[in-house]
Amino acid sequence: MRIGQPGRPLDARKDELILQAGRELLLRGGPLALTMEAVARASGVSKATLYRRWPHREALLEALVLREAQPLLSMLEGTPTDDAGLAAKLEAFLDSMLALMGQPGYRAYLQAIVALPQQQADLQRIWWLGPHQTMESVAALLRRYAAAQGRRWPAAARDAETLIGMAIGLEQARILYRQRPWRADARLRRRLIRAVVASFLGRRSAGIAVCEGNVGRG
Amino acid sequence: MRIGQPGRPLDARKDELILQAGRELLLRGGPLALTMEAVARASGVSKATLYRRWPHREALLEALVLREAQPLLSMLEGTPTDDAGLAAKLEAFLDSMLALMGQPGYRAYLQAIVALPQQQADLQRIWWLGPHQTMESVAALLRRYAAAQGRRWPAAARDAETLIGMAIGLEQARILYRQRPWRADARLRRRLIRAVVASFLGRRSAGIAVCEGNVGRG
Repeated sequence: MRIGQPGRPLDARKDELILQAGRELLLRGGPLALTMEAVARASGVSKATLYRRWPHREALLEALVLREAQPLLSMLEGTPTDDAGLAAKLEAFLDSMLALMGQPGYRAYLQAIVALPQQQADLQRIWWLGPHQTMESVAALLRRYAAAQGRRWPAAARDAETLIGMAIGLEQARILYRQRPWRADARLRRRLIRAVVASFLGRRSAGIAVCEGNVGRG
Repeated sequence: MRIGQPGRPLDARKDELILQAGRELLLRGGPLALTMEAVARASGVSKATLYRRWPHREALLEALVLREAQPLLSMLEGTPTDDAGLAAKLEAFLDSMLALMGQPGYRAYLQAIVALPQQQADLQRIWWLGPHQTMESVAALLRRYAAAQGRRWPAAARDAETLIGMAIGLEQARILYRQRPWRADARLRRRLIRAVVASFLGRRSAGIAVCEGNVGRG
């Protein structure tokens, strides 16, 4: 909590109050609970100030999703110079992703997402800025890494999804069925992720070699 | 529909009516919608007959879950004699699993599961007889296969979960967020699954599949 820090501009402090309140509302009650009214009330910020900063609730919702996704996405920035560097980046990312899913609030959030009525535009927004963008960022990292070595990673999007699926396994199902999410255990989670990434990159190297040998046959 | 088949015993026909009605209730409204009252009404079978066959709703719920899981589980029976046989078995299983998840009713079912109140014993039942048992059956197949070759598959449980995760990828998330579940497309799904299983079993053809690439991502 950095509220009330001396020397911090008033607007930044109010932003923080608003975003904290919005996050709480979203996690507990899902998108339907995120109204400008409720955010103003929960944050103690006037509606005039709230609307000056975010002109409509969709803008605030997007800011909230991006704020949750940002720490994950920033882990995927840069271009590693070798396999070990790529592995370290992917491991750190997957570890944080699973830690996020293991949080107590995550199930309530899923519950709220699933309960949304059909055609809810919020769902589309959250999907694109959250899971979809995260998957795309993993794919972009794989492509950059291959390019830096003068190669290509042709199925980067599919491979990114496969990697994420390998790490998640049945963990999301465990959460939906209220089983103990064992990947919440940091030590087990790290061991699993190391194995998953090693396995993923091992296959990939073989794949690229075979791939280059087959150029022109497709 | 085999109702009214000549020569079929009355009890079997009534069982079928009950199970069909129970399945509909479960898929549309989740476990809470599955009451003996509702099943009797929807099936047109008397409550006396219903209770004679299943003494309580939990027994009926278990029968329903097992009936859904059975086709998947039966695909995992037997012991293949070579890698190609193991791959064929795993491919058939994963294909059916993803086809099941791509059904229109699946999201409503997830929604009902997620909405269940805390401590619902039904969740535990469905988890154990459904997803958990399925995962265990894949692990058992891997162990039998290794044993038939005089080897061991030490991390069979973890590997079974990884394989299932690879095949699912973000598909469950797509369903939760009401995105188009692209693995509902039978042709794309089969190509993806072939690549996933080949990669899982560590065959070189994995690379070729990656090369042909873009499975499902267009």
